[in-house]
Amino acid sequence: MALQALLYGRGRLSILDQLQLPHRRHYRPVDGVSAAWTDIAAMRVRGAPAIAIVGCLSLAVELHHREDMDKEALASFALESLDYLVTARPTAVNMARAAQDLTQFIQLEVKRPDSTADDFKENVICRIEAMLEKDISDNRSIGSHGAQHILSTATTDKVTILTHCNTGSLATAGYGTALGVIRSLWALGRLEHVYCTETRPYNQGARLTAYELTYEQIPATLITDSMAAVAMKEKHITAVVVGADRIAANGDTANKVGTYQLAIVALHHHIPFYVAAPSQSCDLSLDSGHHIPVEERPANELTHVNGVHVAAPGVGVWNPAFDITPHSLITGAIITEFGVHHPQDLQEVLTGKKQHIS
Amino acid sequence: MALQALLYGRGRLSILDQLQLPHRRHYRPVDGVSAAWTDIAAMRVRGAPAIAIVGCLSLAVELHHREDMDKEALASFALESLDYLVTARPTAVNMARAAQDLTQFIQLEVKRPDSTADDFKENVICRIEAMLEKDISDNRSIGSHGAQHILSTATTDKVTILTHCNTGSLATAGYGTALGVIRSLWALGRLEHVYCTETRPYNQGARLTAYELTYEQIPATLITDSMAAVAMKEKHITAVVVGADRIAANGDTANKVGTYQLAIVALHHHIPFYVAAPSQSCDLSLDSGHHIPVEERPANELTHVNGVHVAAPGVGVWNPAFDITPHSLITGAIITEFGVHHPQDLQEVLTGKKQHIS
Repeated sequence: MALQALLYGRGRLSILDQLQLPHRRHYRPVDGVSAAWTDIAAMRVRGAPAIAIVGCLSLAVELHHREDMDKEALASFALESLDYLVTARPTAVNMARAAQDLTQFIQLEVKRPDSTADDFKENVICRIEAMLEKDISDNRSIGSHGAQHILSTATTDKVTILTHCNTGSLATAGYGTALGVIRSLWALGRLEHVYCTETRPYNQGARLTAYELTYEQIPATLITDSMAAVAMKEKHITAVVVGADRIAANGDTANKVGTYQLAIVALHHHIPFYVAAPSQSCDLSLDSGHHIPVEERPANELTHVNGVHVAAPGVGVWNPAFDITPHSLITGAIITEFGVHHPQDLQEVLTGKKQHIS
Repeated sequence: MALQALLYGRGRLSILDQLQLPHRRHYRPVDGVSAAWTDIAAMRVRGAPAIAIVGCLSLAVELHHREDMDKEALASFALESLDYLVTARPTAVNMARAAQDLTQFIQLEVKRPDSTADDFKENVICRIEAMLEKDISDNRSIGSHGAQHILSTATTDKVTILTHCNTGSLATAGYGTALGVIRSLWALGRLEHVYCTETRPYNQGARLTAYELTYEQIPATLITDSMAAVAMKEKHITAVVVGADRIAANGDTANKVGTYQLAIVALHHHIPFYVAAPSQSCDLSLDSGHHIPVEERPANELTHVNGVHVAAPGVGVWNPAFDITPHSLITGAIITEFGVHHPQDLQEVLTGKKQHIS
């Protein structure tokens, strides 16, 4: 069974504390919105879809336990909570999109003349629980679409995939996006090998992706980020598949820093480069990647490893958490739950004007 | 004053223990060939030119203290020592070249009918000490040639350089190759900024280059290896300058893993890519980079940082220490002590058939 990154039941939520992985598998209770904000900012949970799910579920948990509040007070609390949760990490769009969706829902629900405070709570909680279900089923669709497309263009029976950062069960509600594609290939018996980059400075690849892959006994090799080019040259990589924190209307993609570099190197080796993400990660309000805000993280993520000072003291540090890969470098496709899309078709597909290509 | 990576006087040698940097500046005595071999293999000293210098100086130290041996026994000991020293690290050619040069010298010296054992010792030791002097003066020439060429093609008064790994005082007998170019630009008042990659898995950039740059108060920013592309896009990088462990006759260059990736990314951004190395690093016996052996280092360099297990246990690891950058990606030049060369001219320049281009 795939690793469970979160445990949810009505009124209770626990997350697998990713700061303690791979050494300790510890589920940490999240008793409400404030705890979720702290855990997201501290990166105990990370990955754009997982941030949104944990944020929203924390609201569901807290709503469940709120007694003696009328409908309007519950609505105000929920709306303020959503605004607050969006501020925990700025680059990933999923939390903002989920908040927007829930805000609209809440604004309609609170106006229903026939509903009680309990009805309101129940409806909002159910809406959030449906998000959790949808995220997992969307990921399975992404995995299936991506696997079929990669296999349809591959020249070998089994394929070798290179991936970056962590986009698996630990980054989503479950199954994963880019890692969902890898899981689907593995389930089909068509996966030869996975190369995962360690993904400096936060080592999500070394700590989390390597953990998920070994947990499910998928054959995998860890490399440094700077070995990607020589791996592409020597290791028969079929495709590069990564996730996304936010995708602009033209297909430009914000993802973990290093993604842009990987895409350039893949182009140089004529290896197709895929971005796998739920449509929720697409932000059609942004024309291009120029408008995506990129979070800069603290210097000590780079200078220290597990609290030990590695770098020379006093040196300046630049630590952007993400970079923008222009759509022209996404030579494979963008994979969403709807199918496999050319970056330039993304906007039309998502607005229903065009069918996807597979 | 530039950082001193080794302290040598007749009969004694100490090296700055690079495993203890940047936390502790500790000079470790090297009492002979066996100690040098161990220190080279353990990477207490690293960098192709430094390995050769420390190896040869350790022989000079041990010869100085050998008493009661005749000329032939001294020669046998010296020749065996050189063969042994070459085995400590296989990729860097400098130690092998120095050993070859000294072997020829020793084979001639031992046959001189008029010389005593003391004469023999004195001549071999002087020959080795001359290597030390030459390495430093060659580096100063490399620095000067490289700086002039970069400035001649730059469109700004001050230039910004991106470098990889450590090629400074700590990698050479002193001053440095790629870092020598940076030092020369700084001395000329024409250096705006340096970006240095941390250089996983061994963090030579974060530990050593950052240490040298802050030691001399050269303005520098540390980035992860995977941030090079976004730095090239956003930070007005004038040129990328790296060192070399071995350069084949056609200009293909073996250097620290990640160099190949940097060269691809520099090409994509139309940023000139320079390799700076003494002519001793050029191995004209190899037609191309295909013939350069690449050392694979232990997995724990990647899975552990300062003894702490970072990666998920059980994941496979690939850890090539070097990669090969094809000459076509060396778009700036190869810089040696003789000048600045197009890669395709390297062989003719080094065999005296052609003048260098600057």
